[in-house]
Amino acid sequence: MAQHDSLSEYLETAVDAAKRAGEIIRNGFYKTKNVEHKGQVDLVTETDKACEDLIFIHLKERYPKHKFIGEETTAACGTSELTDDPTWIVDPLDGTTNFVHGFPFVCISIGLTIGKVPMVGVVYNPIMNELFTGIHRKGAFLNGNPIKVSSQSELVKSLLATEVGTKRDKLTVDLTTGRVNSLLFKVRSLRMSGSCALNLCGIACGRIDLFYELGFGGPWDVAAGVLIVQEAGGLFYDPSGKDFDITSQRVAASNPHLKDAFLEVLRQFE
Amino acid sequence: MAQHDSLSEYLETAVDAAKRAGEIIRNGFYKTKNVEHKGQVDLVTETDKACEDLIFIHLKERYPKHKFIGEETTAACGTSELTDDPTWIVDPLDGTTNFVHGFPFVCISIGLTIGKVPMVGVVYNPIMNELFTGIHRKGAFLNGNPIKVSSQSELVKSLLATEVGTKRDKLTVDLTTGRVNSLLFKVRSLRMSGSCALNLCGIACGRIDLFYELGFGGPWDVAAGVLIVQEAGGLFYDPSGKDFDITSQRVAASNPHLKDAFLEVLRQFE
Repeated sequence: MAQHDSLSEYLETAVDAAKRAGEIIRNGFYKTKNVEHKGQVDLVTETDKACEDLIFIHLKERYPKHKFIGEETTAACGTSELTDDPTWIVDPLDGTTNFVHGFPFVCISIGLTIGKVPMVGVVYNPIMNELFTGIHRKGAFLNGNPIKVSSQSELVKSLLATEVGTKRDKLTVDLTTGRVNSLLFKVRSLRMSGSCALNLCGIACGRIDLFYELGFGGPWDVAAGVLIVQEAGGLFYDPSGKDFDITSQRVAASNPHLKDAFLEVLRQFE
Repeated sequence: MAQHDSLSEYLETAVDAAKRAGEIIRNGFYKTKNVEHKGQVDLVTETDKACEDLIFIHLKERYPKHKFIGEETTAACGTSELTDDPTWIVDPLDGTTNFVHGFPFVCISIGLTIGKVPMVGVVYNPIMNELFTGIHRKGAFLNGNPIKVSSQSELVKSLLATEVGTKRDKLTVDLTTGRVNSLLFKVRSLRMSGSCALNLCGIACGRIDLFYELGFGGPWDVAAGVLIVQEAGGLFYDPSGKDFDITSQRVAASNPHLKDAFLEVLRQFE
């Protein structure tokens, strides 16, 4: 009970940080159209950095003994190892390409792991005003309302989400489109929205039935989202069927009914 | 001037109809998760039909001499030929798969052609509360604010949108993924949102730089969107580079800077 109380407090702090960072993102989002391209890149870096600073300062003030892993910090200082200590894993701006272009799928992702297990997750899209939250064993919510994964049990009626990533070497692109080709014969349709964290939340609230992505940025893209999926009754797993590894840059997610059939298709590509 | 005045009145009537239909869609959108699958299909058909009836009754009351082409009516009664008469071309619910799954890219599309030329266009997403409008030679607007296409001039920095459609024969799927494969080496990234009309509006407001789709439903998917693209300073054309034909189920769109480079890639697939 004591732990649940502190988890609720952690969530509240994370939501507060996400909402403040959301204001910075919202301001930048509506400016990108009015700056030159070099300026756009600077604006992304500035926004990313300003959000991460704000979030880390906010969390560190309250939890000075916790550890922190952030996309910006990690990119600058090398890989941070995930330990059993309470660790905040933060993506200050997921969907940077969308941010630059003004496509509305952008978000802040804040996850907390304890003993390497995700315990609290916040994913906030400040443009569409959607706040996804989850606490270990206490459920998942969209703007305060409980959410659950879809009840779909047939691949052929399922909506799939994936992404094309950022690598453009021939092998990667051929594998990416090869997977899409095979999957199109199995599922109803395909969406690509450009945010890994929001795709996971799409699984959690049942907008999407199936999601996989290989080669995304790092644990900050999934730390909050996988908890929200789990608390909404969904499953997350490695696309090979092995246990999920938060550091592996590979993730698949669905409701429990679809897991086996989805893995059967995904495993062809391993 | 007299014609502009009546175009403004036509737009006002179309916006009014779209907003009323939007209420029906919004109600259905939040219900789909709670019905069985057969019920979902019924719900789509019911919503589609109820919206088309509402829109046609609303328009016919005011303009009894105009002609009408609608997805539902045309599907039931065979192809309606487009004439030079003022003709309302209506998709009461674009993005039906999204509607069923609760993915927020759904819209109503209402276009008016006079002499086969699109003169008024309304695309309304009642979930994201985005109303795109355009009047021939009077500009394009999002929720009343003027919009324009992106200023991007390099393919490699461009965000592309396309769709996988609904046909799942091997030839179509292979061609679809083959195009995506080639384009991924040329553009920055790819989005698939599941609504042709909203993709066109994405071009118009600069969220997307490039869009093409082959084999969509019919003129109701594009009649409003192409006008909104044009009034936002964009171009729409056949993916072969030929003049656009509203009945051909083929469309490409971009800002003027990107057209030649985009067509050079698209023409490989003709």
